[in-house]
Amino acid sequence: MFELDSRLANDSFYVGKTQLCQLLLANDSRFPWMILVPERHKVKEVFDLSKDDQAVVWRESMALAVFMKDYFSADKMNIATLGNQVAQLHLHHIARYRIDQAWPRPVWGSGEPLPYDETEVGELLDALRASLSSQWYFRHV
Amino acid sequence: MFELDSRLANDSFYVGKTQLCQLLLANDSRFPWMILVPERHKVKEVFDLSKDDQAVVWRESMALAVFMKDYFSADKMNIATLGNQVAQLHLHHIARYRIDQAWPRPVWGSGEPLPYDETEVGELLDALRASLSSQWYFRHV
Repeated sequence: MFELDSRLANDSFYVGKTQLCQLLLANDSRFPWMILVPERHKVKEVFDLSKDDQAVVWRESMALAVFMKDYFSADKMNIATLGNQVAQLHLHHIARYRIDQAWPRPVWGSGEPLPYDETEVGELLDALRASLSSQWYFRHV
Repeated sequence: MFELDSRLANDSFYVGKTQLCQLLLANDSRFPWMILVPERHKVKEVFDLSKDDQAVVWRESMALAVFMKDYFSADKMNIATLGNQVAQLHLHHIARYRIDQAWPRPVWGSGEPLPYDETEVGELLDALRASLSSQWYFRHV
């Protein structure tokens, strides 16, 4: 039985689902930062997913990264699965800019998260869902 | 025409090749840290590879991560493609321990690299190649 880790839930907004994952927006307005969480019970490493699930999650990850690079006009995408702090498997997708606060360092440990303003994030989530609705992997549920 | 980025070359040791990539060992003895560099000209993002190459690199990445977790008895694998500092596409695979110097933070920006002793790294590379030789994706060339 899959249950989203409480720390992931607290630090993000729910965007929708993909075939395999929950899609979240990290609550840090400094960076466009989306997270795929495969809805599989107690999985910590991508390679602990079945081979079929691994193929799906990487296809979804690549498609999401392409979408984000275009949508956010990013200079570079950062894609990572670390899991040192939150054990539940999750994949970071972060749109980076040569002028962002952390560049060229990774975002982790680079200053403090800057939570979204409530109105701002509501508009962003609506716009994101509208654009994602044309993507093969996205379901708004 | 593929050519390994000079900074990647300077900061690592050559281990061997896979079907698609050069396999490197990062010159930082604090963490078992291996890097896959697809031998494709001027590619910066995984999703800029052909779909076939993407499938290959993720299969190789997963297999390498499984190998490293076992070989180095890691608590957790960190897998990431960032490319903010070195544009040439490369995928990090880092074996992490709950007692390592950076835990639970990511390794980047966490203190200074501690280069290997020459004898030590020679022995490690020999042992790694011997163990990797039984892996389907590895060629020692």
